[in-house]
Amino acid sequence: MAKELTPRSENYSQWYNDLVVKADLAENAAVRGCMVIKPYGYAIWEKMQNELDRRFKETGHQNAYFPLFIPKSFLSKEADHVEGFAKECAVVTHYRLKTNPDGTGVVVDPEAKLEEELIVRPTSETIIWSTYKNWIQSYRDLPILCNQWANVVRWEMRTRLFLRTAEFLWQEGHTAHETYQEAEEEAQKMLNVYADFAENIMSMPVIKGVKSETERFAGAVDTYTIEALMQDGKALQSGTSHFLGQNFAKAFDVTFMTRDGKTDYVWATSWGVSTRLMGALIMTHSDDNGLVLPPKLAPFQVVIVPIFKSQEQLSQISEKVQEIMDKLKAKGISVKYDDSDAKKPGWKFAEYELKGVPVRLAMGGRDLENGTIEVCRRDTLTKETVNIEGVENYIADLLDKIQKNIYQKAFDYRKTMIKKADSYEEFKEKIEEGGFILAHWDGTSETEAKIKEETKATIRCVPFDTYLDDDKEPGTCMVTGKPSKSRVLFARSY
Amino acid sequence: MAKELTPRSENYSQWYNDLVVKADLAENAAVRGCMVIKPYGYAIWEKMQNELDRRFKETGHQNAYFPLFIPKSFLSKEADHVEGFAKECAVVTHYRLKTNPDGTGVVVDPEAKLEEELIVRPTSETIIWSTYKNWIQSYRDLPILCNQWANVVRWEMRTRLFLRTAEFLWQEGHTAHETYQEAEEEAQKMLNVYADFAENIMSMPVIKGVKSETERFAGAVDTYTIEALMQDGKALQSGTSHFLGQNFAKAFDVTFMTRDGKTDYVWATSWGVSTRLMGALIMTHSDDNGLVLPPKLAPFQVVIVPIFKSQEQLSQISEKVQEIMDKLKAKGISVKYDDSDAKKPGWKFAEYELKGVPVRLAMGGRDLENGTIEVCRRDTLTKETVNIEGVENYIADLLDKIQKNIYQKAFDYRKTMIKKADSYEEFKEKIEEGGFILAHWDGTSETEAKIKEETKATIRCVPFDTYLDDDKEPGTCMVTGKPSKSRVLFARSY
Repeated sequence: MAKELTPRSENYSQWYNDLVVKADLAENAAVRGCMVIKPYGYAIWEKMQNELDRRFKETGHQNAYFPLFIPKSFLSKEADHVEGFAKECAVVTHYRLKTNPDGTGVVVDPEAKLEEELIVRPTSETIIWSTYKNWIQSYRDLPILCNQWANVVRWEMRTRLFLRTAEFLWQEGHTAHETYQEAEEEAQKMLNVYADFAENIMSMPVIKGVKSETERFAGAVDTYTIEALMQDGKALQSGTSHFLGQNFAKAFDVTFMTRDGKTDYVWATSWGVSTRLMGALIMTHSDDNGLVLPPKLAPFQVVIVPIFKSQEQLSQISEKVQEIMDKLKAKGISVKYDDSDAKKPGWKFAEYELKGVPVRLAMGGRDLENGTIEVCRRDTLTKETVNIEGVENYIADLLDKIQKNIYQKAFDYRKTMIKKADSYEEFKEKIEEGGFILAHWDGTSETEAKIKEETKATIRCVPFDTYLDDDKEPGTCMVTGKPSKSRVLFARSY
Repeated sequence: MAKELTPRSENYSQWYNDLVVKADLAENAAVRGCMVIKPYGYAIWEKMQNELDRRFKETGHQNAYFPLFIPKSFLSKEADHVEGFAKECAVVTHYRLKTNPDGTGVVVDPEAKLEEELIVRPTSETIIWSTYKNWIQSYRDLPILCNQWANVVRWEMRTRLFLRTAEFLWQEGHTAHETYQEAEEEAQKMLNVYADFAENIMSMPVIKGVKSETERFAGAVDTYTIEALMQDGKALQSGTSHFLGQNFAKAFDVTFMTRDGKTDYVWATSWGVSTRLMGALIMTHSDDNGLVLPPKLAPFQVVIVPIFKSQEQLSQISEKVQEIMDKLKAKGISVKYDDSDAKKPGWKFAEYELKGVPVRLAMGGRDLENGTIEVCRRDTLTKETVNIEGVENYIADLLDKIQKNIYQKAFDYRKTMIKKADSYEEFKEKIEEGGFILAHWDGTSETEAKIKEETKATIRCVPFDTYLDDDKEPGTCMVTGKPSKSRVLFARSY
């Protein structure tokens, strides 16, 4: 087969790249560091968007749109923020090209230099808080609960499709509140929305927790995160929600009249997930045959392949298939019928396995005689022959099972990969095996930096929940021996 | 009332600006020429997107995503295209900022200069055709039917909210075909999709036709357009679909193996509509009291305002309202209940008129006694008192009537504004009154330019349909007296 993938065991990273390209999800663009998201990949992203957008609206948020460009001076207004985001960004300095005097193409017109450079947004806190300043006078104007779906640019030197690209697509929520408590609750609420989406739609178990100071969003008071575990034992930060305190309100002088007639700075949150989730989805479930997609995100959930010896037989099969398709569609199941005769059934089977279609149906001459159809599920690659009568209920049920089974499989794998280390030696040994390690840490950035330098592992979060028996009990730092309040979660990560 | 608009008769342009801002649709951003689309405006845009996206998918198109940045050299590859688009664009020259040596903020790092400048896409033909080159080898790879929803940037010096902004949102379809005929049919098909959307969803009558060479898209063989007429008698180009011939295939060397084993360049189309449609929508229907929205695009179609003298009465009204809301929602009608006591009913009435909510219901003490409710329609501002029994059917019917009525009103207005001119003198006189003028033209760019310079009118299109009795009959050019095949459509325009 032409589209064979590098096996995961041989080279995980190559397997990932092969899969993204061969399953028609995305490819590298002619512009360094940027990607083209191909129709099949984009269809998955659209399903993610729909599910997320519905959840945002159900929790009271509205969509809006803010400018792509940020004046350079805005970035400098929040001291930590500029450190985090001004470094690697796309800078617009001119607004016109002109014909090259020597007639070869176009050159930048030096006369068209901007007075102040514009930055292509790496994230929109600054431009949004400069806007909110005009929207907020009193507590009656609060809360503001906005989200935007947008593209952002961070000039990355080493890029990988979906996981780290110069331009990527995301959503960013930006909310403004009267009180510390309300903003803090909002940040937690949206983390829970992300976790619910990850677990129930992506079938991807996640660990919720709070970031260490080092790993915090530039400008945040606290960053909450959901962390997933990929099949190679590396962690992937899949979504973050930030409690921004009054930092951006102070930077952009956004005050409001409180209920008791005083003036205070507005409290803020921001939260986002991106096309990086596509990478997480791929690396959580897929195998050496290709993608494995949760039914809730598959562009089509069922594919039907006819196996025929003559055109006459094909039309008999097609007639039966049409009945089945109508019944599946009536149940809200998306289905594709591939009756092209340019490719053989075997080629089609491999192709739809590569593309992760959750259920494949095949119907041949014998099925026609017996009133049966062959059902193959992508997650386990097992086949069954079932009666056509009532097959739509069988499939609806099967899709539900697949959705749950791949979650359970990922959950079980993760369970074996959450370990404990009580000494730095043990930690160094176990980190080589991959997975999450719960260990004690003295809470200082110095120790964190030392661990990162020596082991390439970072603190993914201080988890909210308990995963082993004594996570939440105090102990002593594995490196310095100083006291530690609870274990924290380490991993090497994407 | 605080939010009074400048009347249209006094200053149409100011009325428009007032309305966009006061109805919370959009506002100017801190970045020159860019806009912030506010939640209420964005909700209308989202409804437009959903309707268009559904139509694109029904006609076999898929969404994808291509990069924001275009290498400067790509623009130069199609000779006409570079003339049209390279002139006013945002140019990225650097990829890093650094702390200013004097400690004040950040400056562009001169070391981080790009080898080749990147242009923020003004339209994506070039980057997409450089990509399609790798996707197309044979006729079996065709057609490619892609669309993307994206932001684009054209550095405009004089900007107006929605109508002309440096950054705007749009969709751009880019298709690749085996034959001239197939591409040509695709371009026409998408023009019809736009016209159907404009007329049946936006309630905005449009004239379909083909552009003159001067007004053609830079790089197209033919540009098809839908032209609408605003209330001030100016035309607004509302959507265009381009038959690109083999121009971009030649520029990017995109060839394919034909069915008979030869090699040929691929045939192309592109087509787009943008947030400019928001401006068209506003200027087609709205009045001195504010927005008038077609029910199919209203963020909420019905608002209910209680008129109460006591909290007890309010709860009685609310109980009845809840029943009505349930029935409306069951019929798929979106409804908002505004029972806040911070504002008086009169203020609310004005506010929802300003926001163009198609139907307003009001319920007071007497209605409660009589089992009635007051229904006010936004398009005519007429009121009726109707029985609560079956009110949901009454409203469903009314929304349908409003959708059709505002179309008819705009259609009737346009009808009075399509005129004929048989001499240049007559043309000059009539163009001052606004509206479309059908006149004979000799087909040359010189005459077209002279007319534009002397009257500010441009050829909007050569219409496909007949609007007066003799549109399609030959005649002589009103300016030069040379022969003309048919009348063409002139107007001053946005």
